[in-house]
Amino acid sequence: MGAVVLLSGGLDSTTCLAMAVDTHGAAETHAVSFDYGQKHRAELDHAAAVADYFSVGHQVIPVPSVFSGAHSTLLVGGPDNPQIAYEDLPEGQSPAYVPFRNAIFLSLAGAVALIREAGSLYFGAHSEDAERWAYPDCTPEFIGAMANAVFVGTYFKVRLISPLQWMTKREVVRQGLELKAPYHLTMSCYDGREPACGICPTCRSRREAFRANGIEDPIGYEPDL
Amino acid sequence: MGAVVLLSGGLDSTTCLAMAVDTHGAAETHAVSFDYGQKHRAELDHAAAVADYFSVGHQVIPVPSVFSGAHSTLLVGGPDNPQIAYEDLPEGQSPAYVPFRNAIFLSLAGAVALIREAGSLYFGAHSEDAERWAYPDCTPEFIGAMANAVFVGTYFKVRLISPLQWMTKREVVRQGLELKAPYHLTMSCYDGREPACGICPTCRSRREAFRANGIEDPIGYEPDL
Repeated sequence: MGAVVLLSGGLDSTTCLAMAVDTHGAAETHAVSFDYGQKHRAELDHAAAVADYFSVGHQVIPVPSVFSGAHSTLLVGGPDNPQIAYEDLPEGQSPAYVPFRNAIFLSLAGAVALIREAGSLYFGAHSEDAERWAYPDCTPEFIGAMANAVFVGTYFKVRLISPLQWMTKREVVRQGLELKAPYHLTMSCYDGREPACGICPTCRSRREAFRANGIEDPIGYEPDL
Repeated sequence: MGAVVLLSGGLDSTTCLAMAVDTHGAAETHAVSFDYGQKHRAELDHAAAVADYFSVGHQVIPVPSVFSGAHSTLLVGGPDNPQIAYEDLPEGQSPAYVPFRNAIFLSLAGAVALIREAGSLYFGAHSEDAERWAYPDCTPEFIGAMANAVFVGTYFKVRLISPLQWMTKREVVRQGLELKAPYHLTMSCYDGREPACGICPTCRSRREAFRANGIEDPIGYEPDL
């Protein structure tokens, strides 16, 4: 049975894809990305490059414009992304939260999995996404509920697989390095800048995770301010 | 706190909308419909007429083309709808099942609810939808899982409300008649025919539900064969 993998083109989903390919093989793995009004739309090119690296199928699904009126820093027209680390953000709702985004992604990808007769749907949320409830649609509670909805709602044909759910970012990178994940092809910067800005929460978190594994992040960053 | 209601333009969702308006008032109720490649796309005009009748806001959300390759009798390009009653269909997967459709609808509508600051998301599945697992995405198990996902995934701001979940079609109609639901404006025929075909499973079920309440369905049907 094959796999469908949510692939943003960032570090976590690329690791998740590497794990899916390791388990299911490239021929049985298919990646899906979403075009939803994100500022970092350039990530879709990175997703395509990552999928190509693994020789897996890839499709970009356009998400209808249900997000107009949302005030997410991730969305075109939204406020600026903060320039601090995650742990320095105030507790509570993340300014980058996109309304119920991951449920929409998982539901659309669940349909794709069912049609492709893929029994596994991979989702690369990791434990730091869920910390302090910053992203409620990355928490174990949400993932468990969606896992039930996916399994029951597809006649028990598709299972939600979230192998990074209990890993820190450092552990995600360690896992990916073991599987030779092509991190040089990925993009994480919330502003979608190339070279990466290095100061948005995701740039900081990612860079630190590489250093914690004793190496430098292979992507380029703007010179430190 | 307001309500967002999934509105297909059929009998169940129109009843559900009547209940939401009764509870929240028209000004605080907003209906959403979906354009997803259904044969009975004419239902969208009926949904608009029903929303207009109740003086509630209404939007049609286009669903991206994830369903290509699905063999649902509901979809354009799919096989013909059967011309028998639900209870005469073979047990198991319904030929009308659209892959993971209701999860997609609920997820998109969940985002709309959150952005509109509506605390209630109404979904009009009724007990006969779930019978014999014909529609797995209408079962109590699926609804419960999605209710958790919606609540957790929206920072506990949106609750899924499914007031028809334990009702038969007969009871749905009785409820709607009490609330003066505008059934004359609705469309249920899976083939989207006007007058309704009268022989697809949904036409049969609907007509019978009115008769069980001692009245004739107010919409027109083709002369009986």
